[in-house]
Amino acid sequence: MLFLSKFPFKTQKTSQKVSDNKSTSVLLQAWFIRQTMAWVYTYTTLWLKVLKKIEQIVREEMNNYWAFETLMPSLSPREVWEKTGRWNSIDVMFHVPAANNKEYALNSTHEEIITPLLWEFIKSYKDLPVCVYQIQNKFRNEKRAKSWLLRWREFIMKDAYSFHADNEEFVQYYEWMKEIYMNVFTRLWLEKDIYITQADWWTFTEKYSHEFQIKLDIWEDVIFLDPKSKECFNKEVTPCIIPNPNISDDKLLERQDIEAIWIIWVNALTKAFWVPAEKSTKTMMFIADDRFIVASVRWDYDINTLKLQKILWAKNIVLATPEIVMQKTWAEIWYAWIYNLPDNTELFIDDSAKWLTNFETWTNKTWYHSINVNFGRDLPIPEKFYDFKEAKEWDRNPKTWEVYEVFKASEVGNIFPLETKFSSAFNVTFLDENNTTKIPLMWCYGIWVSRLMWVIAEYFLDEIWIAWPEQVSPFTHYFVIIWEENIDKWINLSNILNTNSDDIIIDDRINVWFGQKMSDAELIWVPNIIIISPKTLEKWWYEIKKRWSKENELVIFNF
Amino acid sequence: MLFLSKFPFKTQKTSQKVSDNKSTSVLLQAWFIRQTMAWVYTYTTLWLKVLKKIEQIVREEMNNYWAFETLMPSLSPREVWEKTGRWNSIDVMFHVPAANNKEYALNSTHEEIITPLLWEFIKSYKDLPVCVYQIQNKFRNEKRAKSWLLRWREFIMKDAYSFHADNEEFVQYYEWMKEIYMNVFTRLWLEKDIYITQADWWTFTEKYSHEFQIKLDIWEDVIFLDPKSKECFNKEVTPCIIPNPNISDDKLLERQDIEAIWIIWVNALTKAFWVPAEKSTKTMMFIADDRFIVASVRWDYDINTLKLQKILWAKNIVLATPEIVMQKTWAEIWYAWIYNLPDNTELFIDDSAKWLTNFETWTNKTWYHSINVNFGRDLPIPEKFYDFKEAKEWDRNPKTWEVYEVFKASEVGNIFPLETKFSSAFNVTFLDENNTTKIPLMWCYGIWVSRLMWVIAEYFLDEIWIAWPEQVSPFTHYFVIIWEENIDKWINLSNILNTNSDDIIIDDRINVWFGQKMSDAELIWVPNIIIISPKTLEKWWYEIKKRWSKENELVIFNF
Repeated sequence: MLFLSKFPFKTQKTSQKVSDNKSTSVLLQAWFIRQTMAWVYTYTTLWLKVLKKIEQIVREEMNNYWAFETLMPSLSPREVWEKTGRWNSIDVMFHVPAANNKEYALNSTHEEIITPLLWEFIKSYKDLPVCVYQIQNKFRNEKRAKSWLLRWREFIMKDAYSFHADNEEFVQYYEWMKEIYMNVFTRLWLEKDIYITQADWWTFTEKYSHEFQIKLDIWEDVIFLDPKSKECFNKEVTPCIIPNPNISDDKLLERQDIEAIWIIWVNALTKAFWVPAEKSTKTMMFIADDRFIVASVRWDYDINTLKLQKILWAKNIVLATPEIVMQKTWAEIWYAWIYNLPDNTELFIDDSAKWLTNFETWTNKTWYHSINVNFGRDLPIPEKFYDFKEAKEWDRNPKTWEVYEVFKASEVGNIFPLETKFSSAFNVTFLDENNTTKIPLMWCYGIWVSRLMWVIAEYFLDEIWIAWPEQVSPFTHYFVIIWEENIDKWINLSNILNTNSDDIIIDDRINVWFGQKMSDAELIWVPNIIIISPKTLEKWWYEIKKRWSKENELVIFNF
Repeated sequence: MLFLSKFPFKTQKTSQKVSDNKSTSVLLQAWFIRQTMAWVYTYTTLWLKVLKKIEQIVREEMNNYWAFETLMPSLSPREVWEKTGRWNSIDVMFHVPAANNKEYALNSTHEEIITPLLWEFIKSYKDLPVCVYQIQNKFRNEKRAKSWLLRWREFIMKDAYSFHADNEEFVQYYEWMKEIYMNVFTRLWLEKDIYITQADWWTFTEKYSHEFQIKLDIWEDVIFLDPKSKECFNKEVTPCIIPNPNISDDKLLERQDIEAIWIIWVNALTKAFWVPAEKSTKTMMFIADDRFIVASVRWDYDINTLKLQKILWAKNIVLATPEIVMQKTWAEIWYAWIYNLPDNTELFIDDSAKWLTNFETWTNKTWYHSINVNFGRDLPIPEKFYDFKEAKEWDRNPKTWEVYEVFKASEVGNIFPLETKFSSAFNVTFLDENNTTKIPLMWCYGIWVSRLMWVIAEYFLDEIWIAWPEQVSPFTHYFVIIWEENIDKWINLSNILNTNSDDIIIDDRINVWFGQKMSDAELIWVPNIIIISPKTLEKWWYEIKKRWSKENELVIFNF
């Protein structure tokens, strides 16, 4: 029981407006949180209770499917990160200088800790599958806030790691894990807006990672949902075709190469306005590993370098410098485009440009651009058109031709295929049924535990309050005590209610009037408000106000 | 229920010997822990269960006395530590370089975070006392292991902070806190070896801090207990008098100043042997703030600089350099001693030297030492003898003249008077009953939660096993299943037992023989081992082996 008369974190009369985010303002007003520094928070008592309840739900669901809880440290030695090459490649990881000329990682993830630990236990196919998890603090040295409510420098995650003998075994396990996740989100009353979304992870695989995204106005992702197949993609990997593709001119006009000194800058700036999108292209040149690549989409699309990179099967992709462009196309960068390229140039055309006729392009010749250019006449019809455009609203799913639904969302969970990257680095092997040495496949699974609290706050925000889902409301019962002398009576009542006493707030404040107590109970949003006054006590009654069902009852009870 | 057939962390046949510490070897063998790096551990499932149970005990006891749980972050901004001057003075605090040229503290303690947070809530004497706590990770950039089991780079503490209007209010609160602490230790079955010990904290106060020390062989402290008054001191602050003080010669001999070139080094090395302790002194010279101090104890004692510093009321105390000694005593450092000092020298004599007669000292003159020196003849009788010697076995308590009991111990909790140091730094003030602005007094209270796990392991280690106290054993029931096909039967049994299912291990391993299962159950030390075999099932029985009472029972049950 929390006695409000002793409680330091008092509600405020008016909310502190923080950015435009209403739920945060409520959390501040209702004493749930305080900021310690940018993107680092102190959880006061009420927020911590929400956290513990979410943690417990996650824990119960994980344990149900034979995942075993551990607790790994926040610090780890530099050496393990050097083994996987991630000491420098994880740019958000804090490096902590330590005594004796050491340097530690302040972990942003734990593959490098769990893998060598499980090395000791994985010897045979009989030891697989195995899954361990933890609910633990993570640290990220963020430079900029992406979405200030969601990206913190310090936050709590559930991170799980599983090892498998082969892919078939994993596929079965994966179905369990999806069940675990959906169970968690169901208990949090979020399930109807959760979308399992394909997203990027690992360049050298065609597998997607899966993100559990919740449709929400505090967002960092844009989701494309096929309403028919229910396939769901993060914008960064959404396959797409343009809404109305088959528009081509009937008649091919004569090509003109125009010296256009006077329009170069005007053109660069206003091209989008005086050439219709379906008469022009957008072209960019890249170095993908060692290859020089020219890539082009229709003018009104953007190039999605991640999709392009996957097509090219490239480890790295960067924009080509003006010097390289000059050397490869014989043109200054402003004039380097898709027409008139040297013969050996690797040219990739997105399918948004497939139906272009009589279109405009620069000429790969200083000061010149060309109009009425056509595939099959002025430049060869590409053997294949690709899909590396950034998906837009009204685009369709190439598999079903359905127009995507597009919405904003926030990631609350994820599943990543780690393949053998970490098992190999730490020499984890096992003997299969034929006594052959093999490397186990590894997956990892995250749930953004502390982010979930903010998501829930935002998701269940009504006009005034955060109406907490039953299972995570910080307290279940709020006793508004008006006749404060009868402590024994309400202690007795709490026993009668058969409620976990940790879940009861007793508002025993003296000199605080009834209306203030009720409004605090409403602000904190405790689902059951119990009012005990001389009037109700007279009749051996208490009054209970049930907030979810919106019922008020007068209940007779026997002290 | 934990199903052992799926569990990755398998017991080992033989223990890994780690240093000479038996309990750690058992913990490793029984799969409780693994080291991630020096003094940084991963807790596997069993250890984590012990941790959570201890945490819950601490939490319940704290909540009982109106302390409110919060969760503060591990990172904090440099600025708050600069406000209290502790950014550089806490030498074990990690400083973490961060993006945008920032630097964060990786907190080793949280006064600098909680004080500005509570500033917002403490306005009036009516808001006091207030106490908040957290159970949270702490980080220390330790250079050397003091006691490798106890000093970690990363560990979990319960740290509480209270604010009070005045000292009287605190004194009452302090009694509650002692009760909380003793309740915790009682529930952990440790109470009979817990000693509330006075220790050092804060130079500018005569108040001691209190440490809760447990008598134990993995130790970092030496404790002096007055068996009569039950007063208990950490060696670093133990007041003491020598065991047999009143031994003086009846007759004072004539003083001799001897030029002793030939014995200087021999003397320095062997003095202890050829001059009896009660005929000689040990002298050291210090700079205490701005003062030059000569301090002397009887030869067989050491100077406790902490005790001396408190006598001198000095902020800093360091050994004087040879140059300063020469300048102040006119003697080279080897010959600078207590006899023949310049008149204005501040000389402090410990009471161990009070009864010296005909004693030896260097003469403050190069090559010379003197024998048969006497107070009151060769140098004045000091106005006061002090107590700044380091306590030794057989020493007595000056208040009671009782000989101390001396034992090794390990700190499991502490209480520190913080006075107004932090309240002042962050401008926390309140209005008292007369509307006068005052600064609240602050205390802090620690329980070494993760250390407690090691302490318990060591404390309850018998010849072979760690016999966990009932409330913290990782599991309460271990089902040794021999007839593994009847899963339903033992699931049903677990219901009949009315035990929290999280507290049951089911050893459903196939191809593991009975003896191995029993020995694992004994190694993990689960208090109730339940054996279910075809033989017992035939008679509708199960067998229960109760480890604390050492009873075996056959119980009839109805599936």
